[in-house]
Amino acid sequence: MKLLNVKSVDEVKKVINNNFQCIGRTEYLPLWDCLFRVLAEDIFSPETLPPFSRSSVDGYAVKASDTYGASDSLPAFLNFTGEIKMGKSAGKINPGETKYIPTGGMLPQGADAVIMVEYTEKVDKQVYIYNQIAPGENVIKAGDDVKAGELVLPKGTVLKEAELGSLAALGINKVPVYGKPVVGIISTGNELVSFDTEKLENGQIRDINSIILSAMAQKFGAQVILGGIRSDDFNSILSGAQNLLSQVDILLLSGGSSVGTLDFTAQVLRELSDEILVEGIAVKPGKPTILAKKGNKAIWGLPGHPVSCMMIFGYFGEILMDVLKGNREMKIKKTCKGILTRNIPSSAGRTELVRVRVEQAQEGLKVTPVFGKSGLITTLIGTQGFIEIPPFKEGLENGSIVEVVLWN
Amino acid sequence: MKLLNVKSVDEVKKVINNNFQCIGRTEYLPLWDCLFRVLAEDIFSPETLPPFSRSSVDGYAVKASDTYGASDSLPAFLNFTGEIKMGKSAGKINPGETKYIPTGGMLPQGADAVIMVEYTEKVDKQVYIYNQIAPGENVIKAGDDVKAGELVLPKGTVLKEAELGSLAALGINKVPVYGKPVVGIISTGNELVSFDTEKLENGQIRDINSIILSAMAQKFGAQVILGGIRSDDFNSILSGAQNLLSQVDILLLSGGSSVGTLDFTAQVLRELSDEILVEGIAVKPGKPTILAKKGNKAIWGLPGHPVSCMMIFGYFGEILMDVLKGNREMKIKKTCKGILTRNIPSSAGRTELVRVRVEQAQEGLKVTPVFGKSGLITTLIGTQGFIEIPPFKEGLENGSIVEVVLWN
Repeated sequence: MKLLNVKSVDEVKKVINNNFQCIGRTEYLPLWDCLFRVLAEDIFSPETLPPFSRSSVDGYAVKASDTYGASDSLPAFLNFTGEIKMGKSAGKINPGETKYIPTGGMLPQGADAVIMVEYTEKVDKQVYIYNQIAPGENVIKAGDDVKAGELVLPKGTVLKEAELGSLAALGINKVPVYGKPVVGIISTGNELVSFDTEKLENGQIRDINSIILSAMAQKFGAQVILGGIRSDDFNSILSGAQNLLSQVDILLLSGGSSVGTLDFTAQVLRELSDEILVEGIAVKPGKPTILAKKGNKAIWGLPGHPVSCMMIFGYFGEILMDVLKGNREMKIKKTCKGILTRNIPSSAGRTELVRVRVEQAQEGLKVTPVFGKSGLITTLIGTQGFIEIPPFKEGLENGSIVEVVLWN
Repeated sequence: MKLLNVKSVDEVKKVINNNFQCIGRTEYLPLWDCLFRVLAEDIFSPETLPPFSRSSVDGYAVKASDTYGASDSLPAFLNFTGEIKMGKSAGKINPGETKYIPTGGMLPQGADAVIMVEYTEKVDKQVYIYNQIAPGENVIKAGDDVKAGELVLPKGTVLKEAELGSLAALGINKVPVYGKPVVGIISTGNELVSFDTEKLENGQIRDINSIILSAMAQKFGAQVILGGIRSDDFNSILSGAQNLLSQVDILLLSGGSSVGTLDFTAQVLRELSDEILVEGIAVKPGKPTILAKKGNKAIWGLPGHPVSCMMIFGYFGEILMDVLKGNREMKIKKTCKGILTRNIPSSAGRTELVRVRVEQAQEGLKVTPVFGKSGLITTLIGTQGFIEIPPFKEGLENGSIVEVVLWN
C-alpha cells in the first residue's frame, strides 16, 4: 500500500478534533448508572443548599447581641429552653433565651450565631456564656453552598463520585447523559481464526486484536459490537464493514500482518467513507494507519501487528472517544518521571512511542524500554506505560530523566 | 469522641498492609469478563508461540546457503515452486527452489530464511536473487515468543488489554481470577434521609455519602451492598452493621456530622471487631477516622462530612482494596506538576490533603487549591486531584512547583 497522506501525530489529533463531534444521543439515567458518563445538559439547582442554616459546632444557639460584653469574669446569663434534635425542626428562641445545638443541627428562629460549648456552663435552667461572638459565627447559612436556580454542573462534565454526590445532595437522582459511543471491531486476514479456537491448523494464528481493541474500547467508555473475522477479500471485508458500520459510531478494521490485507482495508475505506482523512501517520509503531469519516462516524484501518494496533488505538482512540462522548473537561496526561536505563535510538521526522517497564529502585523510578519485534506477544505485557519521543529528537540517553505516560 | 490511637498516614498504610490479605475466593471467568481482574494463579503457556516459523517480510523463502555469493552483478537463480497462502500449510522446498511468502506466512520445510522481494526479480519460472542472506534472516522462529510450559503471567497480575491479548494468543480463554471484594455501606445520623427523597422536612439532609462511597468502591473494582441509613442509636447501628458485616469484606460506616454519631460508631466498632487498629489519623481532612478488623474483614468508621469521607476512602480505600484483590503489581502514583497560584498554610505534625483545580495556562499547568468548609457540596466538584503536604512541612508557597495526585 502506498501511503499518500502521511500526517504527524499532532496533525492527526487536530484532524480528529476538527472532523468529529459529540454523538448527541441522550439517555436519562439514575445516578447509580452514571459513573464516568458525560452530562448532556447544564444542571441548575432545584433547591437551596443547605436548605436551612446549620451549626458547624456543638454549642448553644444564641442571638449574638445577647453575648456582647460577656467575658470570663462577667458572663452573660441566658435561659435554657431545650435541646435541638438532629433532623427535627428547631423551633425558635426569644431574646435572652438559648438552646443546645449539635454540629449540623438546624439553627432556631431568632438565633444568628452559635457559641461553642467550651465557652459555656450550664447551671440548672441557665446557661452561662463566657465569651462574646459576632452574628453568623459558627453558622453555615441557608444557601451558603448553592442557591436555587444556580448552575451546578455544566454540560460536558464527566460524572465522578463528587459530582454524583453533589447531584444527590440537591435531590436530583436522574440526569441526562450522552449515550455510550458504539465501537464495531472486525479483524481481517486469511490466517486468522477466532481466539477461542482450541487447536490451530498449520499456518493459522488466533485473532487477538479483537479482544485487545474490545478491552480498550470498554476502558474508554464505549459499548462494543464484535464483527468477527473476514478473509482477505475485498467483497468479504466490504460487506462485513458496511453492515457493522450502520450499527456503530466507530468502526475498527485491523489488518492481518500481510501487505495484501492492508490494501484491501484501504480500498474498503475508500468505498465506505465520504473522505479519507489520514493515510499513514509519522509514528512508530503504527505508520500504516488509515482514518476515514462517513458523516460523524469514524472508520479506522489499524495495523495488524498487535503491538502497533494497541499503541495506535490507545494513543488516538481515547481522543476520538472523548470527542464523541461530549467530554469537555481538560485532559491531563497521567505521567511519572524516572531514570532511563539504556539509550533509545530514534529517527528524526517521526514520533516514536516506546513501551517501558517502570521499577522502583533506591534512587527513584527506573525506566526500561521494551524492544522486540512487534509481532511478539510477550513484548505486549508487563509494561506500565510509554515514552513519547517527538519527531525533532534523535533518541534519548541512558541516565536521562524521562516522562512516562502511564496506561490507564 | 476521644481519639486514643492516632497514627500517621504512613503508619496507617503499614497497618493496612500488615493486617489484611487477599480474600482468596477464586472464579473461573472467560477473558471477556476479566478486564482489570487479578489473576489467582500463575499461568503457564500450553503452547509454543508462534506455533510455526513465520516470515516477517514479503519475499521469497529460501535455504540461505543457496544465496551465498549472490550479488547485483552475479545473482543466484532459484526455481519458483509456488506461493505460500496465509493460513495454509506451506509445504516444502528442495535445495535450489523457492516459494513466494507474504509477511506472517508460514515458512516451508527446507527454508531457513526469507529474502525481501526488493532484492529479487521473478522471470518466468525462475527467481533471481541479488543479495546473500544468513540463516534465520527475516524469520520469527517457532517458539521465539513463548515456549510451551513457560510462565506467561504470574499470579497477582492485573489483566489489562495486553495481558488479555496474550492469553488469547495462547488459546487460553478462561482464567482463574480473584473475586471482587464486597463493600457494605451504612450511613448514620438522625438528620439523614435517602438521597432520592424529593421533599425534605425541616432539619433533614439527604445522605450523599452512600452514593459517593459506592461510586468510589466500584471504581476500585468492588461490588457494593447498600445498607441504608441508621439513626443515632447504638443498637440500631450495631444490628445494621452486624447483619451487613456477615455479607461483606469491607464495611464502611460513615457518621453524620454530629459528635454523638461518631461516638456510637466507635462503640459499634469496638463491639463488632477483634481489634481497633487505628483510632484517629494525623491527617486533614479526616482525622476522626477509625479502622478495625474482624478476621480478614475491614471495618471503617469514616467522618460524616462528605469531603472528609471522600478524601479518606479515596486515599486509603484503594490501598486496602488492592490488598484484598491480591494485586501484586507495583503502584505508580498518577501525577502532574504545575505552578501553585497561592500560598497553602499547613500545620506541622499532620499530613494535609488539599484538593486542587488544575488549569492549562501559557506557562504550563496552574494549580489552585479549593478551600471552603468541608460541609459544602460545591467544594467537592471541579477538582482534578490533590496535593499531599507531608507532616514535616509547614505549607507551600505561591509560585512553587507542586505535584498533584490525579483522581482516577
